[in-house]
Amino acid sequence: MADKSRLSLNQITTANWSVAEAVEGCARHGVLSIALWRHKIKEAGLASCVRSVRDAGLHVSSVCRGGMFPAPTEPERKDNIEDNFRAVDEAAALSADSLVLVVGGCAGVGLGEARKMVTDGIGAVVPYARERGVRIALEPLHPMYAAERSVLVTVGQALELAAAYNPNDVGVILDTFHIWWDPEIEELISKSAGRIYGFHVSDWLVPLPDILLGRGLMGDGVINNMKLRLLVDQAGYTGPIEVEIFNRAIWDSNPDDVLKQVIERFEKFV
Amino acid sequence: MADKSRLSLNQITTANWSVAEAVEGCARHGVLSIALWRHKIKEAGLASCVRSVRDAGLHVSSVCRGGMFPAPTEPERKDNIEDNFRAVDEAAALSADSLVLVVGGCAGVGLGEARKMVTDGIGAVVPYARERGVRIALEPLHPMYAAERSVLVTVGQALELAAAYNPNDVGVILDTFHIWWDPEIEELISKSAGRIYGFHVSDWLVPLPDILLGRGLMGDGVINNMKLRLLVDQAGYTGPIEVEIFNRAIWDSNPDDVLKQVIERFEKFV
Repeated sequence: MADKSRLSLNQITTANWSVAEAVEGCARHGVLSIALWRHKIKEAGLASCVRSVRDAGLHVSSVCRGGMFPAPTEPERKDNIEDNFRAVDEAAALSADSLVLVVGGCAGVGLGEARKMVTDGIGAVVPYARERGVRIALEPLHPMYAAERSVLVTVGQALELAAAYNPNDVGVILDTFHIWWDPEIEELISKSAGRIYGFHVSDWLVPLPDILLGRGLMGDGVINNMKLRLLVDQAGYTGPIEVEIFNRAIWDSNPDDVLKQVIERFEKFV
Repeated sequence: MADKSRLSLNQITTANWSVAEAVEGCARHGVLSIALWRHKIKEAGLASCVRSVRDAGLHVSSVCRGGMFPAPTEPERKDNIEDNFRAVDEAAALSADSLVLVVGGCAGVGLGEARKMVTDGIGAVVPYARERGVRIALEPLHPMYAAERSVLVTVGQALELAAAYNPNDVGVILDTFHIWWDPEIEELISKSAGRIYGFHVSDWLVPLPDILLGRGLMGDGVINNMKLRLLVDQAGYTGPIEVEIFNRAIWDSNPDDVLKQVIERFEKFV
């Protein structure tokens, strides 16, 4: 079993909590790390978030998220890159392990063009991030999000994109919900050694209740989170493990109860 | 543009038509090929279906579908293989180009076990099919179906499974809805040369209305069907191109109107 000391609460799992509430929740339940979302950081104000996590002695495993590079026009793409610079600033202020990039989908621009825009976008953000000591984490999303969220859909593709950069500047996020189905996942995790910036767990429910909000707690679906965690461990990753669950029913539950369950399931299934 | 002579109506696109009605529809609209579904064959009776397509001079591009091998118990798995034998018999009677296999998902048995059961199931069906002159077409499904329908999720994986057999006995179906997102799809289509038993087109709508019934007509979504068709042509495939659309709204429309639209979109976008 994974040690509870590695558990990081990805804030989206308790979507109704503010940053301050989520930080207090972690403190109350003995969770040592947290991943913050930018819309929540904006609500609370960056300075207040920095104080919250520092006062609680919490580690910030990631800031979610930059990316979303593709757009039909040049000014929009520039705006998107500017927005990524702000995301880097936030990750730097919070001393986050990395800034997660969800690179954006192909709708409106076409698949080939979207991929080029993503490569260009990463190229624009990395130097800015490096100067500020922020590592860029490329997160491949499940292929069902290729149209609307991420043309980056496999770990292999993420490693190819990352290969253009120093392993200390650009790495990958391995999220079991996004990668569990891949017939080459064992080799790909092994190939990710030295580039693994984060590991996320949740579960794939059967039937899937919703494309975006259908994730489950570990143990409620078909993903063998423990097997994947062991592979990630073997590849040398020893950092925080985020529990990141997009699920309407879980969001509507009492967040303290959710966090209790997250810890139980983490200790049993991860 | 693809020539209309290559268009095959996958019967599921006009789900409310019986086999006889779909055959008459094809004749009325100048469509030369049809793909039949087994639940529809069962409704009409196999002998009647054979007569229908023969009398109309229609070519049967495929029978959909065998597969669904994984199951928790040995007797269930045996039953599944027996059912595949019946599917082979139907494909043989209809002189179909191939029997399509949707291999089955991992829910209830686990991913590793499901993959083994699929390999074993194919191994049991191929000799039976070969003796009856039926080619087995492995169809990789989109990874979002890995839990419930198909642990076979990439063209690369399908080619690996097929490689154990003679290219005249086991090949692959390339369906744009299932494979469009794959960053390696160009190389994989090229590698499929000599094993392409069928090519299916539809579109990926944004947003996706439903995981199972959310496909659109070519031109209504993000898939570049023509680009993929040209790659498949370049790989040497000259056979029928099935239009296969799972969509509740299309199913509820007048099937004659649907078929008219299918032809228009085929001539414009494929």
